[in-house]
Amino acid sequence: MRTIAGHPGMSRNILFIMCDQLRWDYLACAGHRRLRTPNLDALAARGVRFSRAYAQSTICGSSRMSFYTGRYVQSHGAAWNNFPLRVGEWTLGDYMRPLGRQTVLVGKTHMAADTEGMARLGIDPTSTIGVRVSECGFDPYERDDGLHGSGPDGRYDERPARYNQYLKNLGYSGDDGWDDWANAGEDDDGNLLSGWLLRNASRPARVAEEHSETPYMTRRATQFIDEAGDAPWCMHLSYIKPHWPCIAPAPYHAMYGLQDIPAVARSEAERAAPHPVYREFMNSRVSRAFSRDDVRNAVIPAYMGLITQIDDQIGVLMRHLERRGLINETLIVFTSDHGDYLGDHWMGEKDLFHDPSVKIPLIVVDPSRAADATRGSVCDALVEAIDLIPTFVQACGGAAQPHRLEGLALQPWLHGYPPARWRRFVVSEYDYSVTPAANALGVAPMDARMFMIADEHWKYVHAPGFRPMLHDLLNDPPELVDLGADTSFEAQCQRMHEALGRWGLRQSQRTTRSEEEIVAMRGSSQRKGILLGFWDESELPDDLVPDKWRGALQRRRDEQRMRDSNVQVSEH
Amino acid sequence: MRTIAGHPGMSRNILFIMCDQLRWDYLACAGHRRLRTPNLDALAARGVRFSRAYAQSTICGSSRMSFYTGRYVQSHGAAWNNFPLRVGEWTLGDYMRPLGRQTVLVGKTHMAADTEGMARLGIDPTSTIGVRVSECGFDPYERDDGLHGSGPDGRYDERPARYNQYLKNLGYSGDDGWDDWANAGEDDDGNLLSGWLLRNASRPARVAEEHSETPYMTRRATQFIDEAGDAPWCMHLSYIKPHWPCIAPAPYHAMYGLQDIPAVARSEAERAAPHPVYREFMNSRVSRAFSRDDVRNAVIPAYMGLITQIDDQIGVLMRHLERRGLINETLIVFTSDHGDYLGDHWMGEKDLFHDPSVKIPLIVVDPSRAADATRGSVCDALVEAIDLIPTFVQACGGAAQPHRLEGLALQPWLHGYPPARWRRFVVSEYDYSVTPAANALGVAPMDARMFMIADEHWKYVHAPGFRPMLHDLLNDPPELVDLGADTSFEAQCQRMHEALGRWGLRQSQRTTRSEEEIVAMRGSSQRKGILLGFWDESELPDDLVPDKWRGALQRRRDEQRMRDSNVQVSEH
Repeated sequence: MRTIAGHPGMSRNILFIMCDQLRWDYLACAGHRRLRTPNLDALAARGVRFSRAYAQSTICGSSRMSFYTGRYVQSHGAAWNNFPLRVGEWTLGDYMRPLGRQTVLVGKTHMAADTEGMARLGIDPTSTIGVRVSECGFDPYERDDGLHGSGPDGRYDERPARYNQYLKNLGYSGDDGWDDWANAGEDDDGNLLSGWLLRNASRPARVAEEHSETPYMTRRATQFIDEAGDAPWCMHLSYIKPHWPCIAPAPYHAMYGLQDIPAVARSEAERAAPHPVYREFMNSRVSRAFSRDDVRNAVIPAYMGLITQIDDQIGVLMRHLERRGLINETLIVFTSDHGDYLGDHWMGEKDLFHDPSVKIPLIVVDPSRAADATRGSVCDALVEAIDLIPTFVQACGGAAQPHRLEGLALQPWLHGYPPARWRRFVVSEYDYSVTPAANALGVAPMDARMFMIADEHWKYVHAPGFRPMLHDLLNDPPELVDLGADTSFEAQCQRMHEALGRWGLRQSQRTTRSEEEIVAMRGSSQRKGILLGFWDESELPDDLVPDKWRGALQRRRDEQRMRDSNVQVSEH
Repeated sequence: MRTIAGHPGMSRNILFIMCDQLRWDYLACAGHRRLRTPNLDALAARGVRFSRAYAQSTICGSSRMSFYTGRYVQSHGAAWNNFPLRVGEWTLGDYMRPLGRQTVLVGKTHMAADTEGMARLGIDPTSTIGVRVSECGFDPYERDDGLHGSGPDGRYDERPARYNQYLKNLGYSGDDGWDDWANAGEDDDGNLLSGWLLRNASRPARVAEEHSETPYMTRRATQFIDEAGDAPWCMHLSYIKPHWPCIAPAPYHAMYGLQDIPAVARSEAERAAPHPVYREFMNSRVSRAFSRDDVRNAVIPAYMGLITQIDDQIGVLMRHLERRGLINETLIVFTSDHGDYLGDHWMGEKDLFHDPSVKIPLIVVDPSRAADATRGSVCDALVEAIDLIPTFVQACGGAAQPHRLEGLALQPWLHGYPPARWRRFVVSEYDYSVTPAANALGVAPMDARMFMIADEHWKYVHAPGFRPMLHDLLNDPPELVDLGADTSFEAQCQRMHEALGRWGLRQSQRTTRSEEEIVAMRGSSQRKGILLGFWDESELPDDLVPDKWRGALQRRRDEQRMRDSNVQVSEH
């Protein structure tokens, strides 16, 4: 093992693994009783599992922009999928490269490039800088958002997928291997059964397992590691699964059955008088689908199979790191961009703020000796997605940059010295301006926003224009009772709303001056000739009196002396 | 007069005049009983004077960045002088150029370029784009911040001043004509008496009046107008005065005397138990100075003289526009970046939020016929500095852009159709992290912030960590009584604080998608193949079913028909 001599608590490499739409509780180590995730459990045993980790948004694009910028959605502004991250926002690579870590992407970011912003500033999108601005700061070893659908209006993702070419080279027919082989099964006549259709979820994908997306991306990651050689790196390995289309290759498609599906968390009361925004999301097609038993029974076993496949690939990856001698000098994070309701609360997809949607799995393995004391422990501190960049910066020996980074380094928890002060609330956001709910509720795009603020006890959701939602997480862990309309909880609502108001007034855009620079600026203008409130030279420290003023000063002193002596003379 | 045919309410040119540190009430038309401002009064008679116009910040740099971006300080982040405006923020020129108006600067912006941000994005600061990014979006016909002091640590403004070269060419000695001639007097021996020292304020400046800063900048503006020819323009004529150093050239230095100074607005009660932040600012050197009668008596007449000089130059400029035939096709704004306490409330300078500091003069002359009905009127609507860009955009025929611009176009007031809905509050901000007050109060740079929110009746100031300040503007117009510690006003404080909280949660960074684009995005992904929540093909509109799915669909239908006929057979 190459040690990072003299730097306890530091790591040579950062391996930042993300899944897409993986629920926090769909890991054996997080309490799932039927799912097999031995390799992720082993990661948790080597590191710390954070049991109260929250995504900054419950949709891929915005959540990821918070992961990659270390800033709240309200701060970076990329509030929904395909809302471009504006040129100028600092991203992970901007923090890692000055610390000597090449920063690469393998997989998904769901980043929309701000092409208009680049054009305005004359940035060539094909230049190194332009590519990084377009790729969320990463050097794209492989970019693949895993969303290669197409319809009457064309392709959702217009970039050609290297993965499609890979499948074609292997002999899979057609140009759309992702859509036709990796995310489709077939019937007995060999007809394509698309993974987009939920009834097909229990079929095996047509692609051979070793050619499916998760092993493919794992291999791409190992290729990068091999190519990187001795240069320290920060790699974002960003798996597309278990995100839909939900269909798993054999043998994972048949690994789980009805007996493995956890009981659904929902109550009839939830449908009785729901919050208006919740009602609209409950009424969406995907929520109505996941409220059906046949859908859950078809999809959840496939979802679980995809997770176990990821787990197996984590095993492959860990063995690769071991063989390369990197396992003890690489900080490893395993997380997800958000969860999936899977029918809980009569909901499909994500979007709202119940735990299955907004909480994320988070395992951090810090290889340094400083973290030995906490290995295998579970930390229940309030943790946010934006905490990762500060953690990486600290692990690479960088200085905290709170003027840009809104999260907090996790090292106090990883190194076993719980801080005296830590955040008291987590915040997550969801912009529903693009959704049918905004239409149905008659809410203007500007106002179609929701904020969740939660502590260990209460979860409060503020949707401007509507009553709040409130959940008592201690006494109602499955969040089946919304107390937001109950007047006996007004004080709690008020307390949470005030905390949200404080958050809203935070300093988030003063990014061009660090705290240290501000302190250094104090009084500096005076020494550059900005002299305010001085009646005359006598009030100034002598070194601030310019020579050119001394003639007048001398004359005034002479006059004064003259007057004084005249007074003395007349007194005699 | 060249008319803008077919576009009622539109203007060919924009003349955006700003003074620095001009109090809202130091104009004859605003009620000053001794000051002579006939040319500005004539402007007000031709347009609308807004009597409740507020600066977004009570310090030059941040207030100006709000004027030039159309956004609150919390949104653009340039929270104090010399905090760079980050690369990527849209500025006035970005709105005006696409509307065919060349956008130039003559005078001050106090903009600090984000050189680090430009370097990171590979923007050459000397390129056209780089210069605009550095100059707040303006093409700098002449940039001069009027802050050419120097001291033991060098020059406050490191750029060479064209004005200094101008004075030198005229025969004024030395390289620092601004400091040695325009902003200095002399004693009987010809020794320099600096304008930085308050006791020298009543002296005449050494420079000849026609060579002083205000006529110089006016001439530069007329030169630009002449050079522009037929091309429509938006010119920001940004005078440095009556900002300190406060010393006026003859005859303006002697135009006003003690009898012309308005009574000071302050009370002993204000010093008894002031708000902690107010107390620190009251204790600053400049506030202690302006609490002295000798200082006020020396400075205010000079300040008034400088204003009358500006007024005379406005007359020169208007006559030039008339001669050029532009007076009836140029929208003219006259305003200031903030005010000046001048000893009111035991304060000097600005920084806090009493009216003398936070309110600004604002006169808008819309030359279009649509504005004929309101000429000479006074509008008491709540108006903010950020309203100017939206007003200019509308005057030039552009579309509203509320996803970036946080202000509101003033045309409803200018054209005499008061809107049914208008803002109910104005907000101003001040970041005191660089000031000695932060040190004295032990407040970290991140937390050293103040927010003012006001309506027609109440002004509420929130400084995180301290009790609020509250003024009853209706019953105590001079704001001599701070009710913020009086428990009987808790409900008012609560109401204003909630309004501030709503403001804090506003949408301010979602700048890469317009409202129209968001509405157009609704449902668009489905037609690009993102199909969520469909059990099988039968739930899809037929045009969303790809051909490649039809084989499986046909087979299933055949099987179903087979089953149905089998059932029929067995039923017989």
